[in-house]
Amino acid sequence: MSRATLIVAGGTGTRFGGSIPKQFQLLRGRPLLSWAVEAFHVSDPEMPIVVVLPEPHIDLWRTLCIGHGFHVPHAVVAGGTERFHSVKAGLGTVQGDPVLAVHDGVRPLPSAELIARCFTQAEDQGSAIPVMPVTFSVREVDTDGSRSLDRARLRNVQTPQCFRASILREAFALPYDPAFTDEATLVERTGRRVHLVEGEERNIKVTTPLDMRVANLILEAGS
Amino acid sequence: MSRATLIVAGGTGTRFGGSIPKQFQLLRGRPLLSWAVEAFHVSDPEMPIVVVLPEPHIDLWRTLCIGHGFHVPHAVVAGGTERFHSVKAGLGTVQGDPVLAVHDGVRPLPSAELIARCFTQAEDQGSAIPVMPVTFSVREVDTDGSRSLDRARLRNVQTPQCFRASILREAFALPYDPAFTDEATLVERTGRRVHLVEGEERNIKVTTPLDMRVANLILEAGS
Repeated sequence: MSRATLIVAGGTGTRFGGSIPKQFQLLRGRPLLSWAVEAFHVSDPEMPIVVVLPEPHIDLWRTLCIGHGFHVPHAVVAGGTERFHSVKAGLGTVQGDPVLAVHDGVRPLPSAELIARCFTQAEDQGSAIPVMPVTFSVREVDTDGSRSLDRARLRNVQTPQCFRASILREAFALPYDPAFTDEATLVERTGRRVHLVEGEERNIKVTTPLDMRVANLILEAGS
Repeated sequence: MSRATLIVAGGTGTRFGGSIPKQFQLLRGRPLLSWAVEAFHVSDPEMPIVVVLPEPHIDLWRTLCIGHGFHVPHAVVAGGTERFHSVKAGLGTVQGDPVLAVHDGVRPLPSAELIARCFTQAEDQGSAIPVMPVTFSVREVDTDGSRSLDRARLRNVQTPQCFRASILREAFALPYDPAFTDEATLVERTGRRVHLVEGEERNIKVTTPLDMRVANLILEAGS
């Protein structure tokens, strides 16, 4: 069964600080986004990789790739402002029915083992979502206050979220809903179950400047 | 209104690695637990601080304090194997009706501002629980599979959890329930609401060796 990867980096915010969005800021001297692209390329050098970016970022990304000598082959597709539209745009470029990994562009450090585990399980089960235990207490707020959730039942959801492309196509044919946060949620709305696999600590999502320094720390330790 | 602090460090696990529990492992050359004790002492040098430890750890802790020249004044009380029993034991040593902060011994880096904010709000509102947004997707698993939660409504709950001592005494008079994870949950069972305040990124819970290195990184940057 063939494989393909969509790497989505739609963030335009500058909440992270700096003059460019975080996916373009440097980790060990090269753009954060390039780490994710490389991780998937290394896992399977023949696999097609599509990077989905907002249209206004495409020239910047190409310039950064040249400037940093980043030559890992990948296609670039213009996405929307929301993840839903970006994944849908990326999906439109995929031929046939490969198992497709959808990965956050700001998760630079998935291991080769994690990537292999997600693809293999999705080949077997139709889907594979990496999750980790939640190590802190969680509350849910509503208009009436807040309530504690049972932490033992919660899972921190990572990416790559892997699915047969045909399953994703069916899900992305649904109308856009602002409540959409990940592919798994959308796939479930088509009545399918998603299959959970074990995630990993090093597969962090870079959301704050501290996270960027943590990514550097993980690379330093080779852990 | 007077203030007091309970610092709870009941962990006995060695899942963290190393020959001693993580609360005794070194951050910048002194035991992790000493950082939390110091943070509360600095916030109010007159405030009574009670450290609750499992009985078998008390001598080790005293020896470590002497060995590392850690002289911040605090009482030590023997707790139970579960957080419920430890907090209850600590509470039994508190006189009068101060506002009481209950803090995780493995959260070494609450800022003075966070501690002040929690105490002040608890003085006003009866309780104060620091929370942060959740930056990743969360699923809830059950016997029937798993379902996505609305991340915008979730909060990462930190400590110190602050309450009037009388409110905590009422809550800890309830029978022990293994589902107990934090003080706020228990207080709510007495029919009270808990008041949420803004937490902070640096106030991490050290659960893994990587977390210990992140704590060191935060200290390096003074951030």
